[in-house]
Amino acid sequence: MLLLFFSSSVLAQPQSQPSINEISSELAKKGLTGLHAFSLLSELTGKIGNRLSGSPQAAKAVQWGNKAMMNMGFENIRLEPVMVPHWVRGKTERAAIIEGKKNTPLAICALGGSVATPTKGITAEVVEVHSLTEVRDLGNKVKGKIVFYNRPMDPTKLFTFEAYGGAVDQRTEGAVEAAKAGAVAALVRSMSLAIDNVPHTGAMHYVDGVAEIPSAAVSTAGADKLSALLKSGKKVRLRLTLSCKTLPDNESANVMGEIRGSERPNEVVVIGGHLDSWDKGQGAHDDGAGVAQSLEALCLMRELGLRPKRTIRCVLFMNEENGLRGGKAYAEEKRSSGERHIAAIESDAGGFAPLGFGVSADSAVFEKVKNMSGALQEIGADRIRKGGGGSDISPLASAGVPEIGLIPENQRYFDYHHSDKDTIDKVNPRELELGAIAMAILSYEIAQEGL
Amino acid sequence: MLLLFFSSSVLAQPQSQPSINEISSELAKKGLTGLHAFSLLSELTGKIGNRLSGSPQAAKAVQWGNKAMMNMGFENIRLEPVMVPHWVRGKTERAAIIEGKKNTPLAICALGGSVATPTKGITAEVVEVHSLTEVRDLGNKVKGKIVFYNRPMDPTKLFTFEAYGGAVDQRTEGAVEAAKAGAVAALVRSMSLAIDNVPHTGAMHYVDGVAEIPSAAVSTAGADKLSALLKSGKKVRLRLTLSCKTLPDNESANVMGEIRGSERPNEVVVIGGHLDSWDKGQGAHDDGAGVAQSLEALCLMRELGLRPKRTIRCVLFMNEENGLRGGKAYAEEKRSSGERHIAAIESDAGGFAPLGFGVSADSAVFEKVKNMSGALQEIGADRIRKGGGGSDISPLASAGVPEIGLIPENQRYFDYHHSDKDTIDKVNPRELELGAIAMAILSYEIAQEGL
Repeated sequence: MLLLFFSSSVLAQPQSQPSINEISSELAKKGLTGLHAFSLLSELTGKIGNRLSGSPQAAKAVQWGNKAMMNMGFENIRLEPVMVPHWVRGKTERAAIIEGKKNTPLAICALGGSVATPTKGITAEVVEVHSLTEVRDLGNKVKGKIVFYNRPMDPTKLFTFEAYGGAVDQRTEGAVEAAKAGAVAALVRSMSLAIDNVPHTGAMHYVDGVAEIPSAAVSTAGADKLSALLKSGKKVRLRLTLSCKTLPDNESANVMGEIRGSERPNEVVVIGGHLDSWDKGQGAHDDGAGVAQSLEALCLMRELGLRPKRTIRCVLFMNEENGLRGGKAYAEEKRSSGERHIAAIESDAGGFAPLGFGVSADSAVFEKVKNMSGALQEIGADRIRKGGGGSDISPLASAGVPEIGLIPENQRYFDYHHSDKDTIDKVNPRELELGAIAMAILSYEIAQEGL
Repeated sequence: MLLLFFSSSVLAQPQSQPSINEISSELAKKGLTGLHAFSLLSELTGKIGNRLSGSPQAAKAVQWGNKAMMNMGFENIRLEPVMVPHWVRGKTERAAIIEGKKNTPLAICALGGSVATPTKGITAEVVEVHSLTEVRDLGNKVKGKIVFYNRPMDPTKLFTFEAYGGAVDQRTEGAVEAAKAGAVAALVRSMSLAIDNVPHTGAMHYVDGVAEIPSAAVSTAGADKLSALLKSGKKVRLRLTLSCKTLPDNESANVMGEIRGSERPNEVVVIGGHLDSWDKGQGAHDDGAGVAQSLEALCLMRELGLRPKRTIRCVLFMNEENGLRGGKAYAEEKRSSGERHIAAIESDAGGFAPLGFGVSADSAVFEKVKNMSGALQEIGADRIRKGGGGSDISPLASAGVPEIGLIPENQRYFDYHHSDKDTIDKVNPRELELGAIAMAILSYEIAQEGL
């Protein structure tokens, strides 16, 4: 049965079970010939575009994912309903530097979750800071002002996600900290290593008992310009106008389908990405890529007629960007389902050439995954590192499931991330496909061998 | 002296010599903060553009390289004169599929070195083939016709250079083989894994005693279209018009500068790329990237005040694309110079994130380089493979010098290679810089330790 659709190279020895290396080789050949992940991603980004949780496009994406799984013949396809936040950007978002009678527009966008400004905008003096601590230290000095967070991502970090992690507190918590000190708005340098005029959105949050002030991202070039003006000693005022708002929660869903295990169907390996995206660009790398790769990984196995001992389930999570409701709901349901999850693998770091995987698990499991990297060597995805995973599968990890994240080449990721630049022309079909192949190889080997 | 410009992190232990890992770390920090390789490449591609051997732009590139080395304070800067071929594309290159009275334009470009067609073009029936052997087998059947070579690069090859190597004989030798069988022109599917309407040029050659027939590349999408038409059973005729020609050889030069070794200045490690490019796009990845990286590698060492035991020489070779005159001249001169070359490292595979190096040398030398990869680990460039190098340094290799080639991530390279798509917007400043850092680390370690 296993050999049913196999090509002659593997069938040459009909008596013996094909090795994992032979299977990997066939997965790679099939993937690189068809480049089907890119076709899937083209559909998602072309027909639907970006798809923020709660939006009509997110609803379409759920239907699209469901239909794609049916077309590819996945088993046990179903939607898992989940209530999601529904934030809308609105039509207006703009800012201008005001010097006397001169107004200079500044490229900004609202951060996800922000409240609006009054219709006529907020006009106030700007104070530049580089950390949350600095705002606390300034205290009353920022009262009535707009706090401008301008600590760049550290360019000396090789792994760009580390640089992101070192700067993103300004975006997520900047507004709260500024409001505590009496500021009227927060403006945050975009989380990007590129210097250009494109603002990058992303999640921010409020906390109970602290005033909710509007918060926006400014492009890196705009941030540099604003900073230079402030350094020149001029008193700089800014007018910020945002029309975003939060509507009542909407119903949405995770989408899932699988190949049932032949021997231990109740032991499950999850592979997935998230179906929602920010409302900028097309959500191509973040995380259309992960969605397309997870679908394609299972599709490749099906096309080769592979039936692993354990179940491999493709899960397209909803609401990673601003709530993680899908990831939480999935982990919640699975905890009471009688299934045992033996690993979860997520792709949510861009559709670039895969380098390997990051593994968050105990040492024994880590070593086991590391020993599996042989089959990944042929496609150059054999670097197995400690740590990492993915937001959507982190609630499973909290319940003790080994968490694994695909690590692609990542220098360009934050140039596009959460911005109008995250479009399909930035995705190379072969690089995307190699990520799908890597996920197929690793999930298949885990489903065969256990962890 | 070595420590002169070092940052506090290394100076923390003033008594001890900094380790290669510490030096590597400083090189990486300095490089990723300044991103100077990209500034160099922007100058070369922006002020000069593409620069085919013998062209006015190639002459400007020589002057630019010389001046860049002076600005960066290299030692012993000099030009090594070399006579180069001078082929010009001319104003006209076009093709049309002719079916009855219908003419459909086809995206083509002359291959480098091709003769022109008559002014009114060559119009003839098209015969599709997939190999040189097939043309030999067809013999007289191609007489008076245009031979259309349409074997694609093999998409299942992970390493795209291998796929290129498996298809490029059609471009280099296709015209000769077709002419032997009496064909009037050769049309070759572009060497690219992308399906689009952009033709890719590249070298072809003639041999004594065989008629010189015009030869052009057709875009991959055009090739698929033409092939589909032929498969439909229609008799397809093509009109091909080229105005290219070969002028007398021109004088040009290799450009070189160095850091003299402190202990064994006559032992030399060469790092380099090639200054010439094809006359399409901007020659950004091929090989502006290698030029910028080689300059920047030496510049980084200078800025850190490093003076290695052996000499490290940056060589910007002339005429890699259609003659290799620079590489040959350099090897020729060095053979009689009393210097001993202990290694040559070339970057000529694109300015993408570096994965490691390919080494063509005996086993003992290979193992020594492999053991040096520790310092490259931090920047993810520690994959040391057997084989590889670079065209410009291959004449040195023939004289027994270990030949080393930077291996970057390579899935996208042939999408751009030798075409109008090879422009600087396809280059990421961090990826480019990481290649420069990798070359700095490896050349410095070899210059310290020997091979």
